[in-house]
Amino acid sequence: MSALYQRVAFIGLGLIASSMAHAIRRAGLAGAMTGTARSAESREIAREIALVDAVFETAAEAVEGADLVVLCVPVGAMEAVAREIAPHLAPGATVTDVGSVKQAVIHAVAPHLPQGVHFIPGHPLAGTEHSGPRSGFAELFDNRWCILTPPEGCDPTALQRLQALWRGMGANVDLMDAPHHDLVLAVTSHTPHLIAYTMVGVADDLRRVTDSEVIKYSAAGFRDFTRIAASDPTMWRDVFLTNKEATLEILGRFTEELFVLQRAIRQGDGVLLHEYFTRTRAIRRGIIDAGQDTDAPDFGRIRQHGAE
Amino acid sequence: MSALYQRVAFIGLGLIASSMAHAIRRAGLAGAMTGTARSAESREIAREIALVDAVFETAAEAVEGADLVVLCVPVGAMEAVAREIAPHLAPGATVTDVGSVKQAVIHAVAPHLPQGVHFIPGHPLAGTEHSGPRSGFAELFDNRWCILTPPEGCDPTALQRLQALWRGMGANVDLMDAPHHDLVLAVTSHTPHLIAYTMVGVADDLRRVTDSEVIKYSAAGFRDFTRIAASDPTMWRDVFLTNKEATLEILGRFTEELFVLQRAIRQGDGVLLHEYFTRTRAIRRGIIDAGQDTDAPDFGRIRQHGAE
Repeated sequence: MSALYQRVAFIGLGLIASSMAHAIRRAGLAGAMTGTARSAESREIAREIALVDAVFETAAEAVEGADLVVLCVPVGAMEAVAREIAPHLAPGATVTDVGSVKQAVIHAVAPHLPQGVHFIPGHPLAGTEHSGPRSGFAELFDNRWCILTPPEGCDPTALQRLQALWRGMGANVDLMDAPHHDLVLAVTSHTPHLIAYTMVGVADDLRRVTDSEVIKYSAAGFRDFTRIAASDPTMWRDVFLTNKEATLEILGRFTEELFVLQRAIRQGDGVLLHEYFTRTRAIRRGIIDAGQDTDAPDFGRIRQHGAE
Repeated sequence: MSALYQRVAFIGLGLIASSMAHAIRRAGLAGAMTGTARSAESREIAREIALVDAVFETAAEAVEGADLVVLCVPVGAMEAVAREIAPHLAPGATVTDVGSVKQAVIHAVAPHLPQGVHFIPGHPLAGTEHSGPRSGFAELFDNRWCILTPPEGCDPTALQRLQALWRGMGANVDLMDAPHHDLVLAVTSHTPHLIAYTMVGVADDLRRVTDSEVIKYSAAGFRDFTRIAASDPTMWRDVFLTNKEATLEILGRFTEELFVLQRAIRQGDGVLLHEYFTRTRAIRRGIIDAGQDTDAPDFGRIRQHGAE
C-alpha cells in the first residue's frame, strides 16, 4: 500500500501509539513517523527500540510538518496538548485522537485548533492490560473496530484518508456521533471496567479470604475480572471523570438489575434466575459469531502454559 | 501410572465428567469407567463417542461394582441421586462430587450414604462456557486447583487415593473445610458470575444501544463478562440458591464498595479513583505469577483468529 500520510506524529507513546506505529510500518502507510512522550523514560525506550523515526522532547517539535497528528495521551491531558501544538500545526493537517471518551475530548481540543486543520476524533476498541512504548504490537487492531466521530461539516477527503489509515492497520471503521459513542462505550467498556475494579477491590479487602487464596482459585471466574481491572489507572480515572453522566446512568441500571437478582437469591426464586441466565447466553454467541472472541475451550490459555 | 480405581462411575456426563473421563484415560488411572446421564441425548452422545466403557440408563445401574462414584450433576439434583444410588453402592467405595458449593452438597448427600462408604466432597476449579458430553477435554484440569473438603474422621487411605486421582489428572489439590470453601468461592467465582450475568442483562435491555452495537464493540471490556455469563444456567441457578448466605454477604460488600466509587465519580474525586485502580493491578500480577493465567498480549486471541 502506498503511504497515506507523509509524516505522522504521535503525542504519547503508550500501548495504542506504539501499536499504531508497528501497524503503520507493517503496511507502509506513512512516509515518516515522529513522536514524543511526557516521560523521559518513555522517550528513551522509544529511541532505543526505534519505534518511530524521530523522538522529540516536546509535542510542539513533534508535530512540526506532520500531516497527521495522533493524540495518544490520557483524556485529562488532551487540553494542555492541544494548546501546546496549536501554533505549530501545518495548514491542512489532520488531528485525531484515540481517547476512550469523545465528547470530553472534543470540548478539550476543538476550541484550540486553528482554522484549516481537520479535527476527527477517534477511538480504536482494542487494548491489553499493558502500557508503555514496549507494549505495542502490529496485530492489536486486526479485526477490531475503530469508531470515528467526525464533526458536522467535516472535510470528506480528510475523513476518507483517516478511514483508509485505520483499515490499513487492520481495523474496521464505524462512524457515529460523539454522544452516542460515549453511551455505547459506557455499556461495553466503562461500566464493566468499574465493576471489575470493584470486585477485585472487594476480594483484596476481605480479611477471611487471603489474597493468596483469591489468586490460587481465580480460574473459577475471578480471573476474567482481574484482566480488565489491571488496565492503566490514569487512563481509567480520566475515563470516569470525563464520561461521568453516561457511566452513572448505566451504573444506576446495573445496580437496579443487581438488586432484582439479589432479591431472587434471597427469596429462592430459581425460575427468575434460570430465565435470566439463559437469556445472557445468546449475547455471548453473537460475540463469537461476530469474530470478536474465540470459542476455543478455556480460550486458548491451556496451550500457552508452557510459554508462561 | 497404574490404575488407582478398578471402576469409576460418573453420574452426569457434562463438561466436568467428560473432561475427567478423558484425563483418566490419558493417564490410565482407572480399570474401567461407566456413566449415566438424565437426558437420553447425552447418553446417546456418550455412547457414540465412547466416552466411557459402558453407559447405563440409571444411576443405580451405573454405580454397581464401582469403587469410585463421581456425582457430576447440578447441586440441586444431588439429593435425589444420593437416594437412588445408596442401596447399590459397593462396600468400601468412595463417593465424591464436583459441585461448586460444598455445604449444601454435604447436607444433601451425606445422610443418605450407607456406613462403610467414604464420602469426600470435591470441587475442581476449572471450566469453560461449554456443556454436555462433547465439551470435555483431557487438559481441562492441568495446573488448575481441585479443592477437597473431607469430613472429620475421613479415612486417610481413601483420601490419599482421591488426591492421587486428581493429581494424575493434572490438577493441584488443596484441602479445606466446607464453610471456608463456600466463602472463598463466593468471592472468586459466585459473585463474579452474578455480576457478569447482571452486566450482560443490562446491556441486553437498553433501548438506546442495540444488541448489535454491544456485540460489535465488545472487545473494549464487555467480552470478558459475556464469557462467564454464558455458563450453564441450571448449574448457576443451583449455585446461588445453595450458597445463598456467602454470596449475599459478598454481594453486600460489593455494592457498598461500588457506591464508594460511584460517589467518587459523581464528585470528581480523581485521587480516590487512581489509588483504587492502582491497587487492583497487584492482584492481577499475582495471578499471572501463580500460573493461573497468561500474560500474552490480548491473551492469545489474535493468533487464533484464523481458526475461528
